[in-house]
Amino acid sequence: MAQLLSSQTAFAYWQRVRAAVPLTLCLTNNVVTNWTANVLLAAHASPAMLDDESESEVLASVASALLINVGTLNAMHAQAMLKATASARRSGKPWVLDPVAAGLLPFRTTLCHRLLGDAPTVIRGNPSEILALAGEAAQSRGADSAHDSDEALPAAKHLATEAKTVVVVTGATDYITDGERTLRVDNGHPLLQRVTGTGCALSALVAAYVSTAVDKKEVMEAAASACAVFAVAGEMAAEKALDRNEGPGSFAVYLLDALAVLDGVALERRMRS
Amino acid sequence: MAQLLSSQTAFAYWQRVRAAVPLTLCLTNNVVTNWTANVLLAAHASPAMLDDESESEVLASVASALLINVGTLNAMHAQAMLKATASARRSGKPWVLDPVAAGLLPFRTTLCHRLLGDAPTVIRGNPSEILALAGEAAQSRGADSAHDSDEALPAAKHLATEAKTVVVVTGATDYITDGERTLRVDNGHPLLQRVTGTGCALSALVAAYVSTAVDKKEVMEAAASACAVFAVAGEMAAEKALDRNEGPGSFAVYLLDALAVLDGVALERRMRS
Amino acid sequence: MAQLLSSQTAFAYWQRVRAAVPLTLCLTNNVVTNWTANVLLAAHASPAMLDDESESEVLASVASALLINVGTLNAMHAQAMLKATASARRSGKPWVLDPVAAGLLPFRTTLCHRLLGDAPTVIRGNPSEILALAGEAAQSRGADSAHDSDEALPAAKHLATEAKTVVVVTGATDYITDGERTLRVDNGHPLLQRVTGTGCALSALVAAYVSTAVDKKEVMEAAASACAVFAVAGEMAAEKALDRNEGPGSFAVYLLDALAVLDGVALERRMRS
Repeated sequence: MAQLLSSQTAFAYWQRVRAAVPLTLCLTNNVVTNWTANVLLAAHASPAMLDDESESEVLASVASALLINVGTLNAMHAQAMLKATASARRSGKPWVLDPVAAGLLPFRTTLCHRLLGDAPTVIRGNPSEILALAGEAAQSRGADSAHDSDEALPAAKHLATEAKTVVVVTGATDYITDGERTLRVDNGHPLLQRVTGTGCALSALVAAYVSTAVDKKEVMEAAASACAVFAVAGEMAAEKALDRNEGPGSFAVYLLDALAVLDGVALERRMRS
Repeated sequence: MAQLLSSQTAFAYWQRVRAAVPLTLCLTNNVVTNWTANVLLAAHASPAMLDDESESEVLASVASALLINVGTLNAMHAQAMLKATASARRSGKPWVLDPVAAGLLPFRTTLCHRLLGDAPTVIRGNPSEILALAGEAAQSRGADSAHDSDEALPAAKHLATEAKTVVVVTGATDYITDGERTLRVDNGHPLLQRVTGTGCALSALVAAYVSTAVDKKEVMEAAASACAVFAVAGEMAAEKALDRNEGPGSFAVYLLDALAVLDGVALERRMRS
Repeated sequence: MAQLLSSQTAFAYWQRVRAAVPLTLCLTNNVVTNWTANVLLAAHASPAMLDDESESEVLASVASALLINVGTLNAMHAQAMLKATASARRSGKPWVLDPVAAGLLPFRTTLCHRLLGDAPTVIRGNPSEILALAGEAAQSRGADSAHDSDEALPAAKHLATEAKTVVVVTGATDYITDGERTLRVDNGHPLLQRVTGTGCALSALVAAYVSTAVDKKEVMEAAASACAVFAVAGEMAAEKALDRNEGPGSFAVYLLDALAVLDGVALERRMRS
């Protein structure tokens, strides 16, 4: 049974991030750089980005956490990513892998498997990506998943056990598992699917949150808290946009607003318990 | 005489796109990736993007349509584009060429002429770009045109005939021609010029729409319908922004909202007939 | 003593930009391309962007001004930048250097020092970046400064004298100095720190404004006017966002709106005098 994350726990990690303003180094795809940086800034974290492998080690060493997102992968980025994760591993920095379109695209799948050697702290993906990374047959459609998160939970547990990591598989319900224990978050809103890069930005937020964790239990709670904060902000933004008969453009703007104003009261009111 | 596209035709293609949610692979410039993806998502299509030639064939083969936009071109993208259009040609997938700043910049002009060998389904450009691609003297100013779409219509017809394709030249009036027949769309709003990448995003939407066409007549109608949907959404967004004394920032947000809520009633009310 | 820029002077340069709509070529980092282009368009300038060195000379020769921003630097961009600044120097075009994260990252620091050989018209940075470029010990945290602009003013004067250029160091107060005379702008709002790329976009606006200057005194005034226009727009946007209990997402949208509607009355009302 997956255990529901409590709003108290989510609020505790929200407070840690707010106090630390973690510098989060993102090596991410070129569709979502601006959006990811703005999500991190709105959520009281601090983004840093780079393109060139020569900067990977320095930045990874000063950052509090690292995000590797393999969307729109190219050879230059692959090199920079490998250097950054090696640096993170050496210095014990937490890092998050977002395996965008793994399974569908061999270049990305191969790199993801290589990156697993540097022991990601968390892998955050949609059901298709997690199924594919776990070696199971999956269908994907570009960046979208053709599967439900429930369907992918067994694969997520298997992957977490094999790779000795925490796997976050997001969907209508988000599951966070280390293979033995599983947390879940039941918030969110379908409008999150109508804005590009919401999953990518969540992975960056997971990295920021995980930088405040001190052991595997806390990594799971921190990752789940990032999912909860993002999902609750999504609900707040959707409520405002729908109240005003607006659509995905306004929703994306309100999502940033909500990440900035969200607090313990909002988490308590909206998280199922 | 150019024939005005009817709102019934535009609505018919809007319904096809809404039903199919076409996966639209975009190889586009690094200024507009996020914006283009959000326009496609708002307009009920599904975006996919890539950087590296190794992914061109796989993604082009699973996509419903392909967009090639040569803005901020570099050597890596040029290779990926050539592989993607070759793949599209082999598999009979429709693809759209957006020749950003062709004429002014030799690297882009040369690549565009090479890409013509892979038989684009549609070429969508501003008047300067279409004049340049047709071999006529044109003036451009970065991504902006120094010419009117009326001025470029003869060149558009010539280019369509020579390249056996459909040419869309956009401006105050949008013209869609195969060299013999010409459709036109008279909607739109000047605020569309105050947001970067509106032309680029329209080209992506043309690709999504053209994926639902089965012959050249339908390609023309589908391309014209994409122009109409985008222009009507622009009018809706401008009306709201101006009502509230807002400017291009709010307009861009409302454009995404309008693309999401626009329906047959809005098309019928706003399209000239 | 730094002299406060008058609203009359700021308005005079605003009028020049509005009349000229300067084509501003930006070689900038991949986080802020879209945002920078939209800021320039909102502020009545015209953006152009490129990736490949083969296009540097042509575009630099037709542009009114050039921006070089070394964020997310890679080898391809470094080559394109060196060609562009050499072309700008040969043709006497004004150009602005934004040394993002110089000091922290050796690749960027080295390139900045090389670019100084092509005599930038203006260097615009945060306090940490200006301290680092002036050869002083500075602390930075990704793209954020760990110092105040007051602290960096002596270094800014030193750098301006050594490099025979104008240095703009931005913060709560913006200073614009050629080493002898110093102008200052006291407007702005803390919400500008919660949106990524506001400094980067300001550097592009400085380039657009400086294109209307005919001598060093005017370069200083034009650069200061760009700072004033951006800071006043920031105040207008923050006022609206805070009035409505909104956050950084809405603020960024309103900043574009404010840049578009801002006029001499707004400058006069809000600039300290």
